[in-house]
Amino acid sequence: MQNQDTIVALATPSGAGAIAVIRVSGPEAILIASGIFKSIHNKDLKKQRTHSIHLGHIMDDNRVIDEVLVSVFKNPNSYTGEDTVEISCHGSSYIQQEIIQLLLRKGCRSAQAGEFTLRAFLNGKMDLSQAEAVADLIASENEAAHQVAMQQMRGGFSNEIAKLREELLNFASLIELELDFAEEDVEFADRIQFQDLLIKIENVLKKLIDSFATGNVIKAGIPVAIAGAPNAGKSTLLNALLNEERAIVSDIAGTTRDAIEDELTIKGIGFRFIDTAGIRDTIDTIESIGISKTYEKMQQARLVLFLFDANDYKEHYKNLEVEVNRIQNKYPQKQVLLIANKTDLLNEHRIQTLQTKFPEAILISALNRDGIEQLKEKLLSLVNTGVLTSGDTIVTNTRHYDSLNKALAEIKKVQQGLEENLSGDLLAIDIRQALYYFGEITGQVTNDEVLGNIFANFCIGK
Amino acid sequence: MQNQDTIVALATPSGAGAIAVIRVSGPEAILIASGIFKSIHNKDLKKQRTHSIHLGHIMDDNRVIDEVLVSVFKNPNSYTGEDTVEISCHGSSYIQQEIIQLLLRKGCRSAQAGEFTLRAFLNGKMDLSQAEAVADLIASENEAAHQVAMQQMRGGFSNEIAKLREELLNFASLIELELDFAEEDVEFADRIQFQDLLIKIENVLKKLIDSFATGNVIKAGIPVAIAGAPNAGKSTLLNALLNEERAIVSDIAGTTRDAIEDELTIKGIGFRFIDTAGIRDTIDTIESIGISKTYEKMQQARLVLFLFDANDYKEHYKNLEVEVNRIQNKYPQKQVLLIANKTDLLNEHRIQTLQTKFPEAILISALNRDGIEQLKEKLLSLVNTGVLTSGDTIVTNTRHYDSLNKALAEIKKVQQGLEENLSGDLLAIDIRQALYYFGEITGQVTNDEVLGNIFANFCIGK
Repeated sequence: MQNQDTIVALATPSGAGAIAVIRVSGPEAILIASGIFKSIHNKDLKKQRTHSIHLGHIMDDNRVIDEVLVSVFKNPNSYTGEDTVEISCHGSSYIQQEIIQLLLRKGCRSAQAGEFTLRAFLNGKMDLSQAEAVADLIASENEAAHQVAMQQMRGGFSNEIAKLREELLNFASLIELELDFAEEDVEFADRIQFQDLLIKIENVLKKLIDSFATGNVIKAGIPVAIAGAPNAGKSTLLNALLNEERAIVSDIAGTTRDAIEDELTIKGIGFRFIDTAGIRDTIDTIESIGISKTYEKMQQARLVLFLFDANDYKEHYKNLEVEVNRIQNKYPQKQVLLIANKTDLLNEHRIQTLQTKFPEAILISALNRDGIEQLKEKLLSLVNTGVLTSGDTIVTNTRHYDSLNKALAEIKKVQQGLEENLSGDLLAIDIRQALYYFGEITGQVTNDEVLGNIFANFCIGK
Repeated sequence: MQNQDTIVALATPSGAGAIAVIRVSGPEAILIASGIFKSIHNKDLKKQRTHSIHLGHIMDDNRVIDEVLVSVFKNPNSYTGEDTVEISCHGSSYIQQEIIQLLLRKGCRSAQAGEFTLRAFLNGKMDLSQAEAVADLIASENEAAHQVAMQQMRGGFSNEIAKLREELLNFASLIELELDFAEEDVEFADRIQFQDLLIKIENVLKKLIDSFATGNVIKAGIPVAIAGAPNAGKSTLLNALLNEERAIVSDIAGTTRDAIEDELTIKGIGFRFIDTAGIRDTIDTIESIGISKTYEKMQQARLVLFLFDANDYKEHYKNLEVEVNRIQNKYPQKQVLLIANKTDLLNEHRIQTLQTKFPEAILISALNRDGIEQLKEKLLSLVNTGVLTSGDTIVTNTRHYDSLNKALAEIKKVQQGLEENLSGDLLAIDIRQALYYFGEITGQVTNDEVLGNIFANFCIGK
């Protein structure tokens, strides 16, 4: 499926840097690029081999726009599967714009978001779940998210689906063959083997569907709310958690921390502190925790850290249990961690009292950073990280999750049909429907609307 | 001059994009890269030709960090003149960091600001003024700045200096030769020809020095202050000036306008509205314009647009002349443009009165965008743009400007010496000193401190 337009976009982040890369892809990519490129060795770009790099100038007639390196990739040996040229220019926004504008005047069209990857998919360079993994990979900001996206991009998920699909397709063909010999009442498809296969498929699907709970939090980060009275030390705790991380990250040149101000990565898993400003601002006293805004914030969190000042026992200990139970009853799905702060101010006796009264509480001193490591390990223990090291496929994509659920429902229908000795033609319909949902994941079955939704989430230039 | 370290840096802007490029340069670049790269075709990176591109994976032992394209450049055919590898990876910050960290563990060192270009200079790939032009090119945000930087990077300025230097060097050699034959009283150097050359050099130097006034504003943009009473329509004028420009620029995908919020480019020349918020906020009435803060702002501007409401004639006309004269007297160097706004509300008679009273005033209606084009042309006419189209060399760098001035002073000393029939050995000292200053510009004469200052202004990765 060859697209007729030749498209252009900036492939590197906008803004000034040492270099920028402008990507051109399509049937005319090399021809158009050769028209604006003057090689310092007078080489003709059209005659160069694939995967070669050429030094020269981008010229707008006689005006030199920049000295650049041009990389040539020839159909089908490129990311998109089309002829592709990458222009590596000096990283001024002005130069980037001038070159892109020049390419537009020479016949290119501005690429839409994700259009290079869409073309890679349409040209069979990758399946749909791999294409989706490209966007996940670019968005990945920690080890776990990166690992899951990389596995998916390398085809781990597709292979698992393709294997199931193939086995199911075999049986579907055999059952449909039976229909051609309906009068003779033969069974080409061994019903016992088929039931075994369906159980296997059911188990794999269930495992994949179950993995979504983990996959989703790995991809997005685990939302955590820190609740508690203003004097409980929420900011100090957040700083204690974040600063250690920052100290590690600030060693790395060029790291922008702005975008992940309130994100913390513990052993590769991202924890995202959802706009806790709201919580911090609205809880003036521990009693006010019942107000709707705070609950609204908690609603978004998967985990609530309920912080209290261990020295305020007279004032607050009596209410604490009530409050924690109230939250726990309202959100039985959410894990609430009770955290006693400022334990550095307690003597041995009071610490024992505290531990007796709240055996579940984690004792910390955010100021002295005592107990912070234990808290991090506790946070980590709440995520099923086993799936990460097992190498098992993890589903992170809502679209895949939906298709897997639909496929499972169809498989169950087939199983029920087998039990009820349903006729082959009716069985075949349900099997085909299951196959359809498998195909949705990998893109063997698709439509423009679905593709449009998927690639709209990509950045321009990818 | 081969540097022993192999250096690494992100060459593209930090932040997420479709792709990022990591640059590695030094004697071990290819060896180190080959140790972490697994080609999909099992190619050995060490055996690949220069200017070739290879698809594969960056591996940290058995862990896949990313699927990448690796470009190989072999000494001396690279930007730095050393073996260089460029890794084009997916643009997630996490991946960028992981690859850079891996390279650091494998023996690379983090590149300092401008270190790749410093190496290019040290390895004779470019002279110092060309290296400086690289930074200017990356910083260039409009056509004029781009054109001047490009001319300098391509050696226009260096050639001009080198030509003068060579001719002067010839005479210096001849005069120094005379010293060897001092007893014989010969003159190898024709004094008349030498005087002609000195006049030529003097003229070129003066022209270059004069060009700095233009070059400097081209490089930095022309600072403009908009003054006037709060109701004069300063914001409307600024918007009218900027919005038209924005409409043009917003067509270009990926353009970030944030950084140049208050910059306006007219036919390639940048006009920079210096923090006019101060002016806007502090001038509550036209009389208060005498306050020091406003003058301080004006001090930074090269151009003052003095805006008044043409309908406020009863209130303000009487003060206007006084105020404008006051500014003009305080800053005789600055051009003050008197601008009558809201002329759409005036009838024909009043417009005539206005024109009679203030024949220099530019009549506009910022709201209706009347007169904005004339104002832009007026702004443009205040810059000597002739030098841009003439192709003459323009000096934009303060360091060059200083060296040119010092060289000119030495040339004048030589001229005076000639007139006074100074002896050859004394003449030779002044000529050598002039040659020294020429050499400072192109980097034939340099020291670590100067180099340190120059390259510290570069971004990391260039």
